[in-house]
Amino acid sequence: MTPLAVRDDELALLTDLYQLTMTQAYWKEAMRETATFSLFFRRLPPGRRFMLACGQQHAAERVSRLRFTDEALARLAGAGGFETGFLDWLADWRFEGDIWTLPEGTPVFADEPLLEVDAPIAQAQLLESLLMNLIQLETVLASKAVRIVMAARGRPVVDFGMRRMHGVDAAVRGVRAYRTAGLAGTSNVLGGLRHDLALNGTMAHSYVLAHDSEREAFRAFARHYPGTTLLVDTQDTLEGVTKVIELMRDEPEIRVGAIRLDSGDLGTLAREARARLDAAGHDAVKIVASSGLDEHAIEALLDAGAPIDTFGVGTHMGVADDAPVIDLSYKLVAYAGTPRIKHSAGKVNLPGPKQVFRRLDADGRPAGDVIAGRDETLEAGRPLLVPSVVQGLPVPEAMARAGAARERVAETLARLPAGLRRLAPGESGYPVDLSPGLARAVAADARRS
Amino acid sequence: MTPLAVRDDELALLTDLYQLTMTQAYWKEAMRETATFSLFFRRLPPGRRFMLACGQQHAAERVSRLRFTDEALARLAGAGGFETGFLDWLADWRFEGDIWTLPEGTPVFADEPLLEVDAPIAQAQLLESLLMNLIQLETVLASKAVRIVMAARGRPVVDFGMRRMHGVDAAVRGVRAYRTAGLAGTSNVLGGLRHDLALNGTMAHSYVLAHDSEREAFRAFARHYPGTTLLVDTQDTLEGVTKVIELMRDEPEIRVGAIRLDSGDLGTLAREARARLDAAGHDAVKIVASSGLDEHAIEALLDAGAPIDTFGVGTHMGVADDAPVIDLSYKLVAYAGTPRIKHSAGKVNLPGPKQVFRRLDADGRPAGDVIAGRDETLEAGRPLLVPSVVQGLPVPEAMARAGAARERVAETLARLPAGLRRLAPGESGYPVDLSPGLARAVAADARRS
Repeated sequence: MTPLAVRDDELALLTDLYQLTMTQAYWKEAMRETATFSLFFRRLPPGRRFMLACGQQHAAERVSRLRFTDEALARLAGAGGFETGFLDWLADWRFEGDIWTLPEGTPVFADEPLLEVDAPIAQAQLLESLLMNLIQLETVLASKAVRIVMAARGRPVVDFGMRRMHGVDAAVRGVRAYRTAGLAGTSNVLGGLRHDLALNGTMAHSYVLAHDSEREAFRAFARHYPGTTLLVDTQDTLEGVTKVIELMRDEPEIRVGAIRLDSGDLGTLAREARARLDAAGHDAVKIVASSGLDEHAIEALLDAGAPIDTFGVGTHMGVADDAPVIDLSYKLVAYAGTPRIKHSAGKVNLPGPKQVFRRLDADGRPAGDVIAGRDETLEAGRPLLVPSVVQGLPVPEAMARAGAARERVAETLARLPAGLRRLAPGESGYPVDLSPGLARAVAADARRS
Repeated sequence: MTPLAVRDDELALLTDLYQLTMTQAYWKEAMRETATFSLFFRRLPPGRRFMLACGQQHAAERVSRLRFTDEALARLAGAGGFETGFLDWLADWRFEGDIWTLPEGTPVFADEPLLEVDAPIAQAQLLESLLMNLIQLETVLASKAVRIVMAARGRPVVDFGMRRMHGVDAAVRGVRAYRTAGLAGTSNVLGGLRHDLALNGTMAHSYVLAHDSEREAFRAFARHYPGTTLLVDTQDTLEGVTKVIELMRDEPEIRVGAIRLDSGDLGTLAREARARLDAAGHDAVKIVASSGLDEHAIEALLDAGAPIDTFGVGTHMGVADDAPVIDLSYKLVAYAGTPRIKHSAGKVNLPGPKQVFRRLDADGRPAGDVIAGRDETLEAGRPLLVPSVVQGLPVPEAMARAGAARERVAETLARLPAGLRRLAPGESGYPVDLSPGLARAVAADARRS
């Protein structure tokens, strides 16, 4: 059978065919000048007030190590259309350019580069498809997850979504995005172990059904795992809660840490379950809720005062179902020292290499961004894009900072302006302007075209 | 840096923690009876009239080979919560049961099993999360792609979506789903090579912008790749078409196979481009359209008579953005010879192992399904679920049939009733009934509970 795994050394082939045909054309035409490509999106997805840029530093590190193995070259030769001289050249292909990125976990807005590549065009072009695939996944997932974290207002959110995510890489790498976004844990064993997020697990209905009675299942599981979470809705949720209480009464050595509600009207059930637990003196037993939760459902539950301690979130977060794609572009903005931009209908790009400056107010809250030319120096605001790869080599300090993204996002969320925190659709009021220099360049380009 | 790849031998850890804790509990309780788990969805996603079941035979084959390597066991030991005796038992863990599946590419409806597992409960339970992750991806993508194939009414559809898909596995394995659904090609090099779908590619705006003029870019690319497709919308689409025509007039040795429209009003532009090409005698030059296409946009273009020969589809198909998840369940339906079902609010499952019978009318068109107990024999209709893994070993004939899914889907589409072919939301009118035997079992269970 065909293997399922995609090996790291196969990633050079995870690209669109035209990247290779265009690169062969650059090679044939001896086009060796430096290009700058900029990765950005033209508009926020509907309902989103910002995106949390994730994956770009890891992706930059990864593509800087791309190689065409002998196996890959043999497969390309078999595909046809490539000259022997070009395949020989690909065998020696190395990325030797620079990659600027936003730090992992930076809130990002329309037209702001998440990443820019400066390299000979035949190097920069070849990175496009893979960079986009890698970065989109983590940015889409982190941007959804951070909304759910905000909705939970400090209560732990646990990822239960592995089964709903789009395949193996999404499930595993998604946990890194969730970690950055501030989730408390994940049910996903490989993802959590690899990306250092606490493992969480409860029990499934099948365990209850495989036993002769719900009570017997509760007793067995709680004896195996003192302090565990018991799933109470296999038959009738509140009867399940009562059975847990009776079990703790009849067998005082049994310790239950929490109950999980996984169906029905979670707010009403949580209130009644809380009342029954408290009346029996079990105010330390927590309530975990799951089943179709997203940021809006969590906000509504908490607004209504539902006594839920932990949220387990799967389906909606696992594919970011309200915004499963961002319309990322990777556009040539300069070649051979000249700004280049595309004028297709409805799509205008900002010319030249760029920098984004973010101003903070007196309380350290983001107050607005200015997109500028990369060589501009602006008084107000600090530059966000940092060199993550220089002359083909990852910058160790930048990568170390990438590892601290979770802590940085937590600080960012604590200082996020209200217009960015709100979960309902609407304008954030967060200003993103062009610098005078960039505005002049856009105007000059419009006159030329 | 953390590797990106997930190796095949790591897949036993790609699971939810509770599968392992429940399995340890079954081990401790010496629960060794045979369980049947059924994988199905409770309702079609909004707007879908059927789903194209994909990935289940490949997933069955894959999980039948799951092993816990020494490395995996060491990681579990490090995670805590597992007894040495259980980890030793996991080291010898093998799947020795049976897996029934729908053949790859079968249209499937609510409550019909895509897959059933019969195995000792500690084997069947452990497969849940991975089976769901693997099958959902391919079913979601194939079900969207087949709608786009139907919308194109025989015109080739090419996958341009690798950059928008959710990570590496989605991009590569997605091509298998696209192949099954009937796409003509893909731009995705690794996906196409691995899963035997023709590679397609055109050119990007960056290639045009890196040249001194659009005409110079067209000349260079067409000389490198005689018969290629030229992207004409970097500046002004119709001026781009005129430049292609002028180039072919001035340099008759240049051969252009097609032009690609990638922005603007595709219908209007296609008509005007067609008129200009035809007027210049280039009626053999085809028109490829891309840019935000989905089944509805393609249907509208063709209804309006747009002279488009090939559709390049990316974003919407790449994540199936209108239905990126199916609410798959993997439910215990029998244990130790007894039907088991769950009664949580709003969720009723059908008890026992099952079979699906599909009736064909006199013209060979599907006329309706009956979900039955697996041991029932129904006169009308042929059974759909086939044994794909028996006593832990893949069934070679079943796997060979999986490889022919593309041809089978093409035949299926040719005979699909109108109610299933329509792309607009609405009832398909396709009947899915319970057999008398299964209806009795549901009623008996309802009386017991």
